[in-house]
Order: sequence, then C-alpha cells, then structure tokens
Amino acid sequence: MRTAPISALLGTAFAFAIGGAPTLPGHAADPLPSWNDGKAKQSVLAFVAKVTTQGSPDLVPIAARIAVFDNDGTLWAEQPMYFQLAFALDRVKALAPQHLEWKDQEPYASLLKGDVKGALAGGERAMLGVIMSTHAGMTTEEFEKIVTDWVATAKHPVTKRPYTEMVYQPMLELLAYLRANGFKTYIVSGGGIEFMRPWTERVYGIPPEQVVGSSIKTAWAWRDGKPALMRLPDVNFIDDKAGMPVGIQQHIGRRPIAGFGNSDGDLQMLQWTTAGSGARFALLVHHTDAAREWAYDRASSIGRLDQALDEAQAKGWTVVDMKHDWKTIFPQ
Amino acid sequence: MRTAPISALLGTAFAFAIGGAPTLPGHAADPLPSWNDGKAKQSVLAFVAKVTTQGSPDLVPIAARIAVFDNDGTLWAEQPMYFQLAFALDRVKALAPQHLEWKDQEPYASLLKGDVKGALAGGERAMLGVIMSTHAGMTTEEFEKIVTDWVATAKHPVTKRPYTEMVYQPMLELLAYLRANGFKTYIVSGGGIEFMRPWTERVYGIPPEQVVGSSIKTAWAWRDGKPALMRLPDVNFIDDKAGMPVGIQQHIGRRPIAGFGNSDGDLQMLQWTTAGSGARFALLVHHTDAAREWAYDRASSIGRLDQALDEAQAKGWTVVDMKHDWKTIFPQ
Repeated sequence: MRTAPISALLGTAFAFAIGGAPTLPGHAADPLPSWNDGKAKQSVLAFVAKVTTQGSPDLVPIAARIAVFDNDGTLWAEQPMYFQLAFALDRVKALAPQHLEWKDQEPYASLLKGDVKGALAGGERAMLGVIMSTHAGMTTEEFEKIVTDWVATAKHPVTKRPYTEMVYQPMLELLAYLRANGFKTYIVSGGGIEFMRPWTERVYGIPPEQVVGSSIKTAWAWRDGKPALMRLPDVNFIDDKAGMPVGIQQHIGRRPIAGFGNSDGDLQMLQWTTAGSGARFALLVHHTDAAREWAYDRASSIGRLDQALDEAQAKGWTVVDMKHDWKTIFPQ
Repeated sequence: MRTAPISALLGTAFAFAIGGAPTLPGHAADPLPSWNDGKAKQSVLAFVAKVTTQGSPDLVPIAARIAVFDNDGTLWAEQPMYFQLAFALDRVKALAPQHLEWKDQEPYASLLKGDVKGALAGGERAMLGVIMSTHAGMTTEEFEKIVTDWVATAKHPVTKRPYTEMVYQPMLELLAYLRANGFKTYIVSGGGIEFMRPWTERVYGIPPEQVVGSSIKTAWAWRDGKPALMRLPDVNFIDDKAGMPVGIQQHIGRRPIAGFGNSDGDLQMLQWTTAGSGARFALLVHHTDAAREWAYDRASSIGRLDQALDEAQAKGWTVVDMKHDWKTIFPQ
C-alpha cells in the first residue's frame, strides 16, 4: 500500500483551486499531459503550431483543418478481438432462442459453444454471415438502441472494463487539443458506421455526422404508419484500405491535413492525407506495450502493422511507441 | 430616373454608422427582409423561436438543430432545365473534338446540333450515358476544377446571369438566419454531390462536408507517383425520393428537425424529418411567379410538385407562394 499527500492524490487542479500551489506554467499549460516528452509529442506540437500560428507560411484556414482518426487500435483497443466482433458474438447468444437452427449450423454452433477459434475457421465469408444476421433485419433506430444497450453493459474479457473505457487517454487529449486549435476531428474506420455513432460523441467528442465507416444497405419502408430505414443484409461500403480515401471523399469532400492510424488498413488514408500540398501530418500508433496493453505488429492477424511501418520510416511519419511515449494508456 | 436622399441610397446601416438615423428596431432586426409578412414567414420565425428559446418546452439542443435543404428549385432555379444538365451539355460540346464518333451517335448528335428536345427523346438511359461520359474518366480534383471553371463562366440561357446568381435571396437569408440560431445547414439534393461542393460554401455558406447528393463510384489509383481518386462511369448512389432519407442517415447520422424542398422528389425527406419526436418543420417552395421566375407544379416534368403539395396541405406544412411571399427572388 502506498501513501501520498492529499494534494498529490487530488491533483494539481484541486491545489490550484484552493490557491495553495506554486505556479507551474509549463506543466499547467501542457495540452498532452499523458504523453511523455519525446519525438512523437514534439512532432504533434510542432505541426499544430505550424498550421495555426498567424504569420506562419504553413498557416491553414480553420475550414481546412480536417483531422481523420482510425478507431480500432488507434482510439480504442482491438485485442483480443475487434470489439465489434465481440458485439456480434453477444448478439448471436441473445438471438439464439429465435434461431434454433443455429445449434447445427456453422459458425453459429461453434460460437454458441464459446469456440470463437472454431467459428473463425470458416473464414471471412462465414463471419460476414454472422455480421449480417446480427446487424441487419431491424430499423436504424432499433439498431442504435441495441448498440447503446450493449455498450452500457458489456465488459472486456481481459480487463473487465466497459469497452468505452478501453480508449486511449493520450488520444482523447490529442482530439481535444486539435479541436481547441480549430480542427474538425473525424473518425474514418473499417468498423461499422452505425456501430460507432451511438457513443462517439460522449466518448470522443465526435458527433455522428463526423463518423465515416463501413455500412450495410438501408431501405425506406413504412412501419406502423411511420417511415423507417430498414437495415438490409447486404454490404453497402467497406471503409478499409483503399476504401478509406473513397469514404473520406464521399463524406467530407476535402482532403484531411492530418491522419492518425495504427495498421496497414490505414495506409492509403495516410498516403492520401500526406500527398496534398502544404503542411501535412501522419501518425501511427505502434502497439509495443505488452504489460499495459498489447504488443503486436508485423505478424498480427488483428491490426497488422507491416507495410505502413516501413512507409512511416521511409517518409518520416510520426510513430508512437506506446510503451515509451505514453505515460498512461487508459483513462483512470 | 429617380432621385433619393443620400442616406436612403447608402442604406440605414451607413446612417447608423454616422449616428444620424432614428432607431427602427423592428425593421432593423428583421432576419428575413426579402420575405413579405405572411403565414410562411411567420411560421419560420415561430418555429425557430420555439426550438431555441431557453425554457421553451420545445427547446432543441444545438447539436440536434439539423436543417436539410434540397438544391434544385429550393435554393437555386431549375428551369428551363436542371443546371447540371446544362453543364453536361456544355461538356459534350467541349469534349466533342475528342469524340468524333458523337457526330453520328445519339443523343450526342442531337445535342451537338443544339437539339436538346431530340436528345431527351432517348429517355433516361440515353441521358445517363451523357452524364457518365461528361462526369467520369477524370480524378476528383480534375472534376472539381472543371466545375469551378464552368460555374465561373457559364450563363443562364434566359437571364444571362451566372448560374450561381440564380439562387433565391429569401433562402440565402433563411440559411443565414438558421445558422445564427445554432442550426447546422445541409444540402440534400438529387444533384451530383461533386457538382455542388466546389461552390456551395461561397454561395450558400454550406461547406463540402455538409453536402449530400447523388454520386458515381470512385476508385483509388496511382497517377504520376501520386494517389488519386478516379471517377468511374458507374452509379454509386441516387439521392432522390426514398434515397434522400437514406443519404441523410449515411452522411449525417441523425434525423433533421427542419426540411426544405420544392418537389415530389423531396417528399420522403420531409416525411422523414417530420416523423421524429419533438418540434418539427417542413416547408415547400411553390413556384408561382411566371413574371419574376417560373410558374409550374403538378404537370411539370422538371420539379413536379403534386403529391407533396397535397401532403403539405393535409399535414399543415408551410408552403411558400413565391409570387406573394417573396419580395425579391434573386440577389441584386
């Protein structure tokens, strides 16, 4: 058991409030307190100063300060499986009583026995079926409620935390810092757009209209005398790899000046972001901290970081070494 | 020739600045000076007051103040043909030297002879071909430049004004008034999303990321060592009729509280907007002014207003009678 003075436990904010603390200008003004001083933090601060300082040759008008963030592995964790997959598996269990045939049908039979590895053996096509049977067949508003309820109650299998507390504290600070400097922050993720929207405003401060993601088709329909949008079991758009710049153009209609990712799936988004004229910024989160989070890169089936890591090194993009660059990983 | 006192010519703003004018609070504060007093104007003012006044039971949080506007016939004119069709016809002429085969191929042959009616005889399918041959085959940035150049030089066949001056002054005031009251204003139009984005910020104050429209597919490609998005001759999304609520959900992810349209193509957008809970507003622009603009509704092939007009009357939506409700049509 550790002991500490009350002021340390309560933090300097409280000490300031009661008027007893010495002034610590540099420390108090730090917009990224969970980032250790180092190349990664300095590169972020230098870029923001460059594009926002009046008289700077690299000054960017506020309307063009667009920053795009991947979600899985960049803003929240993605191990031991993508959180949306955990959601789909929970939905299979919840829906099983209405689908007695699943007991004898793969990959559902394996999933219902808790054998995720066996289920994944069916490959992408089998999992796409699982996604469709759990994400389609209801209205957009019904799906929003299902996601909201799940996010409020589901717990991560390893940490037992709610999934929305498995977000990276340093990235929350970065989002707030960019917005305080006139940036519009967007999520651009391979995850489902309607799986993210119900909670991104509360958790990240990113409203639904600034979320870009993969989607299934929807169709206009009348239900009980009211119009509804029905979710159909049919892929509409995959916002991954070369799809990311396509999704950015569809939704935003201008090229971002800063991009943040963590895997090869984000490479084209970073290439598109950095190929524009004027000051540009690209950052990769490298998962190097097996003790506090997970350590994985070139050989991982989830969030593989291989080609993008080579390109980051060749092009001088910022690479965050989670173990050394981040003081804390998750919010307290 | 008319004569007038200098203060009248310079306007009350100048008179205020030199301190010599009497105070005219009601007049000076009118946010919709081009609207005649009447039911339409009063319904707009009453709705905005209701959803923005602190303590009002209908108060709507700023984040949920989403207003959606059709473009053709709602924000700018659409006669004698949709302006994007005029763009396509001009592109056919510009591209003709590279397509010698068009001389003997319909509908191009008719178009090149100036026979638009003959060309339209080929029906929707023929015109879709014209759209694809003029809107695809280049990068997104090249297309943006083509549109920007056209908008800067092309003139309306009847008024000889630039098309971007064929916008409705009362609607410009309405857009500004809603934004001043915390609304986020969106275009949701059957027109091409990338045909609108290059000029909507300058003309309407609506940035590219708040434009929803029809689109063709794009694909990631490398050109001269740089990434590009190539425009493909393949329909991606039609943002018309039942497609409008689908487009709204895709791009915005929340239901608007106010919708503005002018034709049956906007009916589902207005149904979707008004079917939500809480205070809702729907408005139709009815083209009734053959002298200052055009008069058309139930029998028109462009901007037909028939079923939506019946529904507006049945549901008490606001209908603008252009001739009587608007003091001016186009900006001076």
